[in-house]
Amino acid sequence: MLHDNLSVNPAGHLTVAGFDTVELAARFGTPLYLLDEDRVRSRCRSYVRAMGLAFGGASRPLFASKALSFKGIYRIMAEEKTAIDVVSPGEIFTALKAGFPAADMYFHGNNKTDADIKYALENGVGYFIVDNAEELAVLSGFASGMGIRQKILLRLTPGIDPHTFSAVNTGQLDCQFGVPIETGQARAFVKLALEAPNIELCGFHCHIGSQIFDWTPFRDASDIMLSFISEIKNDLGFEAGVLNLGGGFGVRYVESDPYLDIEDSILRLGKHIDGVCSRLGLKKPTILLEPGRSIVADSGVTLYTAGGVKTVLGFRDYVTVDGGMADDPRFALYGSAYTVVNATRADAPADFKCTVAGRCCETGDRIQENVTIAKPQRGDIIAILSTGAYNYSMASNYNRLCRPPIVLLSSRGAVMAVRRESFEDLTACDL
Amino acid sequence: MLHDNLSVNPAGHLTVAGFDTVELAARFGTPLYLLDEDRVRSRCRSYVRAMGLAFGGASRPLFASKALSFKGIYRIMAEEKTAIDVVSPGEIFTALKAGFPAADMYFHGNNKTDADIKYALENGVGYFIVDNAEELAVLSGFASGMGIRQKILLRLTPGIDPHTFSAVNTGQLDCQFGVPIETGQARAFVKLALEAPNIELCGFHCHIGSQIFDWTPFRDASDIMLSFISEIKNDLGFEAGVLNLGGGFGVRYVESDPYLDIEDSILRLGKHIDGVCSRLGLKKPTILLEPGRSIVADSGVTLYTAGGVKTVLGFRDYVTVDGGMADDPRFALYGSAYTVVNATRADAPADFKCTVAGRCCETGDRIQENVTIAKPQRGDIIAILSTGAYNYSMASNYNRLCRPPIVLLSSRGAVMAVRRESFEDLTACDL
Repeated sequence: MLHDNLSVNPAGHLTVAGFDTVELAARFGTPLYLLDEDRVRSRCRSYVRAMGLAFGGASRPLFASKALSFKGIYRIMAEEKTAIDVVSPGEIFTALKAGFPAADMYFHGNNKTDADIKYALENGVGYFIVDNAEELAVLSGFASGMGIRQKILLRLTPGIDPHTFSAVNTGQLDCQFGVPIETGQARAFVKLALEAPNIELCGFHCHIGSQIFDWTPFRDASDIMLSFISEIKNDLGFEAGVLNLGGGFGVRYVESDPYLDIEDSILRLGKHIDGVCSRLGLKKPTILLEPGRSIVADSGVTLYTAGGVKTVLGFRDYVTVDGGMADDPRFALYGSAYTVVNATRADAPADFKCTVAGRCCETGDRIQENVTIAKPQRGDIIAILSTGAYNYSMASNYNRLCRPPIVLLSSRGAVMAVRRESFEDLTACDL
Repeated sequence: MLHDNLSVNPAGHLTVAGFDTVELAARFGTPLYLLDEDRVRSRCRSYVRAMGLAFGGASRPLFASKALSFKGIYRIMAEEKTAIDVVSPGEIFTALKAGFPAADMYFHGNNKTDADIKYALENGVGYFIVDNAEELAVLSGFASGMGIRQKILLRLTPGIDPHTFSAVNTGQLDCQFGVPIETGQARAFVKLALEAPNIELCGFHCHIGSQIFDWTPFRDASDIMLSFISEIKNDLGFEAGVLNLGGGFGVRYVESDPYLDIEDSILRLGKHIDGVCSRLGLKKPTILLEPGRSIVADSGVTLYTAGGVKTVLGFRDYVTVDGGMADDPRFALYGSAYTVVNATRADAPADFKCTVAGRCCETGDRIQENVTIAKPQRGDIIAILSTGAYNYSMASNYNRLCRPPIVLLSSRGAVMAVRRESFEDLTACDL
């Protein structure tokens, strides 16, 4: 099986964290998002432990909320002592409602509105990750007006291409995020921040991309960022105490994806940074990382009910399911790869080649093309693996479909953390 | 201007249906969906009038709800005497809540669940557009159990490629919708339907694609469908009384898109169908069309507030806005073209080349690349034209953003029809 929390029970059903998926589907209905809570916690602990060893001090992971945001996930993060990266007042609100401390929030975003900035200041968000000079000016003005000295990091672009898919690669120069180092614009940005009233510049941030299966792009990014820190220290007399290297460690969606030992990667990175800092005569900064996908993706499984098989003679076989691009838009958006399992017949040979299509009235609504699964009948439960990130968070009500619930699986049992939307929810804003 | 309901007022602001967009943005906030209600009604009347003239009898347009579904739109459709195409219980529920008669609903979908079928039967939905044999069997069983004789159309694929973008082209054989004619599978499907208990087969449906700017693909589709009707009449003694030719008339997103005279196209199609029917010795069937986009798209305008301009030296200029792929995912999904206007400076030369990026933490979050607009400052209102279809209906809460309101513009003024989501709405399902 793709992940070690997946198995097949004597009934021939797929199990996730020991739970029979066919039983879960019957109990909670489909479509259904499952999240293996123990696995999420174990991932958090890996990051916390490895980052403590590798980087020391106050170094810690910030869970990237955009991958999966609901109250329950913030309760887990609070207990696991991660900080969080938030990108909107909506994420801040959700985390606050879950009791997550504002001081441990890092507020991202390339287009923070005046209202966003006020909201975050009023709620005591720990750090702003300032994207651009316009934001800095507005933030400085509001902070002055409110008598707050706001801690910030500056988002910079180191110009590294980690060879990932262009839509999720944000470290190259030509993008809407941050300020480029190479063009000299970052240096001017730092000067502005150092001079801005009521602003306490703590350090720098970069994010080089997603689905990175190798530690060396992070090594390259740290090289560029540390020499920038050194240059700014020599030039402007400011030595950054914090270096946030962003997210991006890869997750296995299909068998052909490589394995990545995240703890080992972090330890190597720590050693490398030690060496660079001593060579450049820098105090070792607090290192932050922003794992989102790599904490939740492979703990998630989505269950659908098959509507049947459609054979287009001379072309191919389609298996249709009762969800699709509304609850998992990643194939429609990026052509993303997924592993599909007939959860009802998980012990049968996976020898039926098919395209799994969603239920939306749109040809592009496909979960995956050309996969092989045990041939389903109407009513079989179809499982899509590694759906813990960017499925619930990107879900829509397209075709006026209700968004599925999230059920957490742990030693406490199968517990609903987000309920299914009702028809009344769909029309809640209709006047 | 792209559409004749757009203009510039003496303040230099873009107007929609005579309303100052900068004032609307100040009054309702941004992001904001505007919908020119009078223009929507005028489009409905065009279809109703032309279809009456061209096809006679009970021929009428079915508004394709998936393009835009909220209570207010169904009130308009009820008043304009269109029927509607629905694809989920959520759409049926919304239309019923708006007082739309169930008898005028046509229920589509390639994966209707048992629960969906029951829901539609219980609520008296006029017609099922049956996609496949599995659905037919379940529907027949439930209808028998409930003592209902259910009227249906069968969805067939005529195998026509109207040369449109593959993701929105559903008339070709190799797709998840309907049953192909060419392979002989459709004939068997008709036999099944004629024999199924408690099922009243009324006719056939096809949908050849989207954004079609020429009437001839519909002519080709009607040729194939009418000869199939003739074949089935001769073969099985069943003469279809209804032919639903689906949707697909094109909409102008940018100046380079052609103009299409929909009424003229429908009149030509009517004459053609008259000729074919008399040649084949068929009674002229009731013709249905399913316009969605072509009724609402060019009546919609989305307003954003600019966060500022970001220049990446040596590359390009970005304008960021306070919305993006969460409220308009069509560029992220399809690379769709849009016309962008600086609504605050609509009288200034549109000479600033830029990429308009959204606020989501994702490089792919762009509204449009390489457009020219009057150079904005933070706070300017940015208008995206032709956003009435597939923007609100596909919107998500990605990055935990609140979905915008819909404001209807008409002689009654600017009236909110869907309110803005609140932070409380975002966590309504969180337990």
